Amino acid sequence: MASLIDALRSSIPAERVVTDPDVVAAYVHDEAQWAPHGAPAVLVRAGSTADVRAVVRACAQRSVPVVPRGAGTGLSGGANALDGCVLLSLEAMNEIVEIDPHERLAVVQPGVVNDDLRAACAEQGLWYPPDPASSPWSTIGGNVATNAGGVCCVKYGVTRDYVLAVEAVVGRGEVVRLGRRTAKGVVGYDLCGLMVGSEGTLGVVTEITVRLRAARPAEQTVVGYFDTLAAAGEAVSAVTAAGVVPSALELVDRHCLRAVDEWKNMGLSADANVLLLGRTDAPGEAGDREADAMVDCFKRAGATWSARSTDEEEAEALFSARRLAYPALERLGPVLTEDVCVPRALVPEMLTRIERAARDNDTHIANIAHAGDGNLHPLIIAPAGDDEARRRAQRAFDQIVDDAIALGGTVSGEHGVGLLKRRGLHAELDPSVVALHHGVKNALDPAGIFNPGKVFGTP
Amino acid sequence: MASLIDALRSSIPAERVVTDPDVVAAYVHDEAQWAPHGAPAVLVRAGSTADVRAVVRACAQRSVPVVPRGAGTGLSGGANALDGCVLLSLEAMNEIVEIDPHERLAVVQPGVVNDDLRAACAEQGLWYPPDPASSPWSTIGGNVATNAGGVCCVKYGVTRDYVLAVEAVVGRGEVVRLGRRTAKGVVGYDLCGLMVGSEGTLGVVTEITVRLRAARPAEQTVVGYFDTLAAAGEAVSAVTAAGVVPSALELVDRHCLRAVDEWKNMGLSADANVLLLGRTDAPGEAGDREADAMVDCFKRAGATWSARSTDEEEAEALFSARRLAYPALERLGPVLTEDVCVPRALVPEMLTRIERAARDNDTHIANIAHAGDGNLHPLIIAPAGDDEARRRAQRAFDQIVDDAIALGGTVSGEHGVGLLKRRGLHAELDPSVVALHHGVKNALDPAGIFNPGKVFGTP
Repeated sequence: MASLIDALRSSIPAERVVTDPDVVAAYVHDEAQWAPHGAPAVLVRAGSTADVRAVVRACAQRSVPVVPRGAGTGLSGGANALDGCVLLSLEAMNEIVEIDPHERLAVVQPGVVNDDLRAACAEQGLWYPPDPASSPWSTIGGNVATNAGGVCCVKYGVTRDYVLAVEAVVGRGEVVRLGRRTAKGVVGYDLCGLMVGSEGTLGVVTEITVRLRAARPAEQTVVGYFDTLAAAGEAVSAVTAAGVVPSALELVDRHCLRAVDEWKNMGLSADANVLLLGRTDAPGEAGDREADAMVDCFKRAGATWSARSTDEEEAEALFSARRLAYPALERLGPVLTEDVCVPRALVPEMLTRIERAARDNDTHIANIAHAGDGNLHPLIIAPAGDDEARRRAQRAFDQIVDDAIALGGTVSGEHGVGLLKRRGLHAELDPSVVALHHGVKNALDPAGIFNPGKVFGTP
Repeated sequence: MASLIDALRSSIPAERVVTDPDVVAAYVHDEAQWAPHGAPAVLVRAGSTADVRAVVRACAQRSVPVVPRGAGTGLSGGANALDGCVLLSLEAMNEIVEIDPHERLAVVQPGVVNDDLRAACAEQGLWYPPDPASSPWSTIGGNVATNAGGVCCVKYGVTRDYVLAVEAVVGRGEVVRLGRRTAKGVVGYDLCGLMVGSEGTLGVVTEITVRLRAARPAEQTVVGYFDTLAAAGEAVSAVTAAGVVPSALELVDRHCLRAVDEWKNMGLSADANVLLLGRTDAPGEAGDREADAMVDCFKRAGATWSARSTDEEEAEALFSARRLAYPALERLGPVLTEDVCVPRALVPEMLTRIERAARDNDTHIANIAHAGDGNLHPLIIAPAGDDEARRRAQRAFDQIVDDAIALGGTVSGEHGVGLLKRRGLHAELDPSVVALHHGVKNALDPAGIFNPGKVFGTP
């Protein structure tokens, strides 16, 4: 049999099969700074479904792992290289194939950047809702792999809610189309939904058909300053109890505000210990009512200050502080990112437990959160090179995972399991459910080549 | 080994294990009048998950098929008895376990009737949207099995969009919990979504956690009368093109109007050949704008009369005519029900092709449709006992299925494949995709006992 690389070069344009270690090095891991990675045999920058099929065929024949990746903005190590693997970048497959305003759908290649799709849709009065914080860089293919969420999910749902169909290369190189183009459809199993969030372990997605919405009314922003995480958590709980469904409800704590201030000099941490940002996009008077209701909830929960933002630029600045929190913290040291999601009513309790985990393990934990749907991102920071601090951070990470599960929550709301949360997956899922996962994995990946060992490990 | 029935009686209360042929006869088929059914070995009316587990264990040990069923209102034969099977009725498991207004979710047993859940939710200011026409009788378990749709799906989605978690008995009797209770979650594969719409072929669902919405504003109704199906189809297309997302957009043709008149004497068919019913639940002025836009679309498409209904009772009567259409037609002879779904813009073309199928095959076809999402229900009627008419009706059925696929549509939008649409499934899905279905089926049902042969048949 020809060598792997000879086989790839015989069917894929030469410039797309890359072995130069300096180039490959930029692709071997995602943004999960704590996750390990191996050394790939080769990087393939696929330009077409045919290229992907050639990779899968060559790998299936040789039992070589395939690790697909988009922009590498993942936070769980899902796209990290395995030793001897083909690292399969889909970034170059970045064509928006079609936007159909009548059927309200778009067809895209996996390498299309989320914000690029959103901009193209906006030109036609349409809207693709899923908006992860990585949207300026992350690709739709990567969003599909992790079932990415974002800020507006609290009202509009996550990536899976928008994926109507995929083309994928599966098995030993078969190209299949899963899902449909129609508004409804129940013919056969939801294999399209199964691919979404499977983190590259069931095949390689090569085209995606997404559902769109009509562009929505402008949002109104409500701002709240709080002294304590607990008070902000109570405000979140009060919003839900009031029956308001905000189009965003985001929390940023003092550690994040300070880190953003130190970087961008925005002066936020002088005003608040904890910032809560609510938004509503309900039309007309309904929007006014929802905004007023949120201000009321914030105040009753003990906000030191709360008001509707009348200045759009100010509102944008506050949301950009939310988006900048993660990179601002990264400047302080390697960040271990949690992604727990708990029942909405338990947000205050979970925030209290996160503070306890920081104290118990003498470690530094900052918080940003999609608070409205109970999805919290405690960010655990340890100084680079301090092994003992790193061990304490890891213990805090595990403690938070266990607390979230104890509260009826989940280990990952939107980032995926990848490498970092495999212990958490096994803590969360019953062994009988893990066994079903292995059954599905073996059935759809008989050669065992698609991102093996990620998510639930090997039996 | 003990006989099947002895084994069941040793672990399930005696009154729940039924062999009396007169009782069993009422359970052997659903409402798909054209689908065949076999003779079950026994009927079990399960009262608990433990009963279901006992059935699955006994059947797995003996390679006996299990056919689960709810209220038997299905229209595809999915719940029809197989020879020698255990017919497993879930109707008696009809407890609403919990409604949690804060998390906006409900936990129910599978035998809870759809309207009963909706009524219980309404008491707490909450709303469970999926509203199949069978909602006064059909069960949530049955709705989950077929991924049932309904009238409000055009705006609010189908059953799968509301199922957060299920408890199911799978494999050889393992009880598993799939999904989650939180708003978001991406730990592992979407096995919960995979169960929804699997028509009892992957296990037996014994508990369901559904997502709820806050109760919505009252709807406004827009009525349109049209001379031709084509004109009504153009009106549907115009509504979509105008960017309006109605909360209902239903079509009823002259055959249905006449059948309802003959039964209920409502006098509808004197006014219209084709009735289009639109609804909006947008709040306040936005609702007024949407209602006006629909009237405008109806008129421009050639409505002979169109207006906003100012009389709530009249609006309710018109929607009840929509719901009565199917039983009214059943009075005229056995009805073969289609459930094709096409891209929205192709509704006029599909309606034209349905009329052609009726002419080509000299058969009688009436139409009701969830027109707003392209989901059409041509109802093919053949006089009882006329074998030649029955063959012509079957040919028309197949012709419509093939036309829908040719237009990029699907064979079933919401009823499921069951027995009646297996030819259609194989016409719609590529053999490589059917092979994936068999792989998943074999992995999750190693004993091959769950509703075998339904949906995609046996390889």
